[in-house]
Amino acid sequence: MPRRENSRNRTRTMARYLYRCAYDGAPYLGWQSQRGGNTVQDVLEAAFAAILKAPLRIHAAGRTDAGVHAVAQHFHADIPDSCRMDARAWRAALNAHLPGSIRILTVQAVPADFHARFSATGKEYEYSICTAEVLPPFLCGRAWHCPRGLDEERLRAALRLYEGRHDFRHFAARRGNEPEIPPPGFYERSIWSATAAREGDMLRLRFHGDGFMYRMVRLLTGTACRVAAGRMQVAELAGMLDCEQGETSRHCAPADGLCLMSVEYEGM
Amino acid sequence: MPRRENSRNRTRTMARYLYRCAYDGAPYLGWQSQRGGNTVQDVLEAAFAAILKAPLRIHAAGRTDAGVHAVAQHFHADIPDSCRMDARAWRAALNAHLPGSIRILTVQAVPADFHARFSATGKEYEYSICTAEVLPPFLCGRAWHCPRGLDEERLRAALRLYEGRHDFRHFAARRGNEPEIPPPGFYERSIWSATAAREGDMLRLRFHGDGFMYRMVRLLTGTACRVAAGRMQVAELAGMLDCEQGETSRHCAPADGLCLMSVEYEGM
Repeated sequence: MPRRENSRNRTRTMARYLYRCAYDGAPYLGWQSQRGGNTVQDVLEAAFAAILKAPLRIHAAGRTDAGVHAVAQHFHADIPDSCRMDARAWRAALNAHLPGSIRILTVQAVPADFHARFSATGKEYEYSICTAEVLPPFLCGRAWHCPRGLDEERLRAALRLYEGRHDFRHFAARRGNEPEIPPPGFYERSIWSATAAREGDMLRLRFHGDGFMYRMVRLLTGTACRVAAGRMQVAELAGMLDCEQGETSRHCAPADGLCLMSVEYEGM
Repeated sequence: MPRRENSRNRTRTMARYLYRCAYDGAPYLGWQSQRGGNTVQDVLEAAFAAILKAPLRIHAAGRTDAGVHAVAQHFHADIPDSCRMDARAWRAALNAHLPGSIRILTVQAVPADFHARFSATGKEYEYSICTAEVLPPFLCGRAWHCPRGLDEERLRAALRLYEGRHDFRHFAARRGNEPEIPPPGFYERSIWSATAAREGDMLRLRFHGDGFMYRMVRLLTGTACRVAAGRMQVAELAGMLDCEQGETSRHCAPADGLCLMSVEYEGM
């Protein structure tokens, strides 16, 4: 499990750890590190650097956009053996260096070939919609406010279409680094379940699948809500799946309502 | 119901309205207007001024401290008849001028002798305590984090002592304007119920009574938790009630966990 890595002309023994963390995405410019900082990754890496007295890179299961929340994001990092602490000590040390809007929940040692992103076998997201006439202050930045006109039967019919293995190219925003001629299956993903549950004034949409592309959950939600609002036919939505022609959906739900609920790994 | 008021040398016809509002207290320096602004009252009065094109004073059922939240604060205001709008239009106009952390929920006309504070016959507060090992980011600023050692039986025994009519002088922080020799009954209040309910990692304390003094709910909570933590005997707490000697409790729970849940008025 410990491994040797040649870094800065000296050989260090490292151990890989997997961290489960939660965050309120509202104050941050998303997960991914960027110039100017104020991303979740930047704040976490600064906490590691303060403890280790050296820079450290962390690797997430997936990037989340600005404003998107996480109940259980996962990332891995390689920690020099010289800085070895037990899991609870790591959690306490990191949380002491983090703002309350980011919390480390658990820490565990993993094999050196484990990767937070490439070892993931499934993910679950929740999208929260508030249908109350007035959005309660505590939900500001944490739910999409849709006070009128969502037909839940139509919403569920739209969500059912997403279930199964499909080419979801029309539900993936472009990052600019996509291949010009995508290899077969490039845009295929499996959604094992897509459901909507009513809890008082809230509609909780759940998407569980083997992977989600850039903005995919927000595009799936926004387009399903377009159908639920009666402004798109179910057949039109069906025609956007497994289809090479046409354009990416224009109906992207806001980041506020989205939360990464879990990342799954085999044997964990 | 409409009344005449002499203001700035002209007689105006006014109508009194009662507003029910909710707010996330975290970004504000409490309810009460102060130099430098950034209080809930300041932000609400600025919204009225923007609509009425004139300053307006509002009168709350009670002030809340910095960081304290409200699900149903109430306030009244006298609106010139020349600016008459129906209740839904008032709500929409105010919410359009307010940040998402403050929301007007309902608006209703009331008699000219109604007063948000003096007409109130009861109030309910909730105090939220999170006992999870790590405080979830969404609860940061919204709950008191007590991960260890609260005995719920002792907590409930302490809360039961509060129920009934008592002299609560040792559970009221001084504002500095109290009479040197308080008249009989000055510190008496009735608490109709004081309970604690467990919901997963949360303990929800509810205080329902005819009125609460400055910081009273936080002092009641902090002192009951001192008993629940085994650091104060139930008998010592009992001795602080209905007692003229001694000092104000030093155990004030943080503002974060407190929320004004309802204000009651006769016949409403």
